[in-house]
Amino acid sequence: MRVKGVQNKLSMSDKIIPGFKFSSISAGIKKANKKDLALICSETVANIAALFTTSKIKAAPVRVNLSKISSKKGQAIIINSGNANACTGTQGLRDAKEMTEMVAKELGISPAIVYVASTGIIGQTLPMEKIKISIPVLVERLSYYSINDVADAIMTTDTFPKISSKKIDINGRRGRIVGIAKGAGMICPNMATMLCFILTDISVKSEALDRALREAVDKSFNRLTIDNDMSTNDTVLIMANGMLKNSPIGKNSPLYYRFESALSEVTYNLSRMIAMDGEGATKLVEVIVRGAKTEGDAEKVARAIAGSLLVKTAIYGKTLNWGRIMAAIGSSGVDVKEQKINIYLNDFKLVSKGVGINKEKVPKELFSKKEVTVMVDLGLGKKEAMVLTCDLTEEYIKINASYS
Amino acid sequence: MRVKGVQNKLSMSDKIIPGFKFSSISAGIKKANKKDLALICSETVANIAALFTTSKIKAAPVRVNLSKISSKKGQAIIINSGNANACTGTQGLRDAKEMTEMVAKELGISPAIVYVASTGIIGQTLPMEKIKISIPVLVERLSYYSINDVADAIMTTDTFPKISSKKIDINGRRGRIVGIAKGAGMICPNMATMLCFILTDISVKSEALDRALREAVDKSFNRLTIDNDMSTNDTVLIMANGMLKNSPIGKNSPLYYRFESALSEVTYNLSRMIAMDGEGATKLVEVIVRGAKTEGDAEKVARAIAGSLLVKTAIYGKTLNWGRIMAAIGSSGVDVKEQKINIYLNDFKLVSKGVGINKEKVPKELFSKKEVTVMVDLGLGKKEAMVLTCDLTEEYIKINASYS
Repeated sequence: MRVKGVQNKLSMSDKIIPGFKFSSISAGIKKANKKDLALICSETVANIAALFTTSKIKAAPVRVNLSKISSKKGQAIIINSGNANACTGTQGLRDAKEMTEMVAKELGISPAIVYVASTGIIGQTLPMEKIKISIPVLVERLSYYSINDVADAIMTTDTFPKISSKKIDINGRRGRIVGIAKGAGMICPNMATMLCFILTDISVKSEALDRALREAVDKSFNRLTIDNDMSTNDTVLIMANGMLKNSPIGKNSPLYYRFESALSEVTYNLSRMIAMDGEGATKLVEVIVRGAKTEGDAEKVARAIAGSLLVKTAIYGKTLNWGRIMAAIGSSGVDVKEQKINIYLNDFKLVSKGVGINKEKVPKELFSKKEVTVMVDLGLGKKEAMVLTCDLTEEYIKINASYS
Repeated sequence: MRVKGVQNKLSMSDKIIPGFKFSSISAGIKKANKKDLALICSETVANIAALFTTSKIKAAPVRVNLSKISSKKGQAIIINSGNANACTGTQGLRDAKEMTEMVAKELGISPAIVYVASTGIIGQTLPMEKIKISIPVLVERLSYYSINDVADAIMTTDTFPKISSKKIDINGRRGRIVGIAKGAGMICPNMATMLCFILTDISVKSEALDRALREAVDKSFNRLTIDNDMSTNDTVLIMANGMLKNSPIGKNSPLYYRFESALSEVTYNLSRMIAMDGEGATKLVEVIVRGAKTEGDAEKVARAIAGSLLVKTAIYGKTLNWGRIMAAIGSSGVDVKEQKINIYLNDFKLVSKGVGINKEKVPKELFSKKEVTVMVDLGLGKKEAMVLTCDLTEEYIKINASYS
């Protein structure tokens, strides 16, 4: 599915984020000469913040990054697709370290400020010879204009690259926040087999950068579920190189909220693109639950609906099987009252006070859009929550039954 | 999938459970003249125990049964398929009550000892006129020999009827325990859109019957997941009519354990049949996790593996994508040690100390059987747990995208 209206290439004028350079190459990790190795590099040491998978089994690159992130400084990121370097034992750890060391050597910087990310098949060691040959070429090819190619190179089963960009005014200067991501399967509930790299020229203090990233991710990637699976490799990383030369934004700075909002917009846009591009998906599904007693309750109900295979297949089948939505609500563990529940599909009321209505007179255009909004009003309070997902199709099964 | 070796018809000699009669009919609730209404009746008032869905949204028949079960007595069960009578408001409750009242009237017994169960589509009221016409016919047709037909009549998307039978010696007398079930989709984690009726001529005291049922269900239906969904209608009900005339088994009786074991065997066999007949399934998958610190940990890991769409599609695709099993283990929330994990598929070692082995020399016959056992040894302790599931196929999507 190639979704219209999705921003997946940046125009020439938008491409440049001052001080950041990019390159990518087909190193031969993936088959068929696809790009599979990429480098992102800042001209100066940047402040860095990152969030990683909460899985107890973490891929080697995640473990390498975790050992460095406490410095809150970074200058380069080397990324490969086609191989996750996960469950690869001590060899995997050595390989991930070696990748950062080679990049550091070629760039003439410390390995302590070089990060690494991998995505793809689990359990196979990296073809290091191919990677080692390619790193000097990557460094040589670094350019201000190549972010689109990096977005391409990090894809696995993604069908389109994912880029989101936002400009904000910082005391009269125009700052940039640009994010690229890869997603597709295995995304739930906490940003899984998902890689996201966000770059900004705005000067942001470490603590503020960290907090803004957490808030943005909580409102976006952590509200995203494709197949309830979680990966060993998830990484969201932001680098702020300060090239805008603004007075650094602290967590109590009046500009903090503007920065965090813009960052949240970027991560939310990327989340929507990932949901749209869920493996085999034909529809983006936004589940909104309101009228809950607590935000936690609203989220539980929204996750139960978004996680239900029966709801997801019903939406794929373009059927109004609202009974499955009711069943999912009931199974959420939240103390709901059946006779108070209203359910809407794209503003069309399906259930009123727990009972189905409008069975016969459903507008045909209800499923004609690429997006479906399921809105549930529990009628119990004033809290709400949102979760993004996609429908579940035969194509998901085909992709995942053959992927190896 | 029609699975060979599954006991889904009882032979003439096994059909009879002393004192129980059966009948079924095509009332027109389902399309195409399929059987959709059934009656089970004991000649005498029986002790009864039951477990129902833990969903907060319970179908009307479940709510009617819950209002009666505290008496621990029962004599008849009326069951329909094709319509779940769930999310049908006060009309649904009236209909469910009326079904039990009509059966009671025709049988000349109290409605307080008549139970009701429904399965099928949610949110549509029952075609009561069709049901009312059929109940007198059902009562007229009651026979000792018709349990196989009842197993047929309660099916929805099931592809074969599910019956399990066990004989045990009770002080020199031969007692019978026979269970029938319907399953297919929406089964998780606590016995969902699952109906199961178990009949025994053994005399068992109410409290012992209740405890034995809970123990049996905990080891079988509650270890079964098809698609992580849970239904509004799940019901497991046992009737013990005492026709064997044995001294009633109490919970401290020396025969209690023998009864409970036999009952567990019946419910476990039915669980396996339900997993084998998961919507669109081609394989029964048994996930065993051992070497855990606690049984709770083992169960969490087993449920994470059995619930992973990526693991289920990999098994369908006959691929040895053990990385997905590792990812599921890591996402379970249990504090595992990657380097201590061993994974076996049908006794073939895939992962040793967290690292994949035997990539090239996988025996072809590994996926040739209808059953796949995934065995994980966490290497952390001595506790273990088992969960049953099935693979996930395009057929599941097709069935559930069109079912309405």
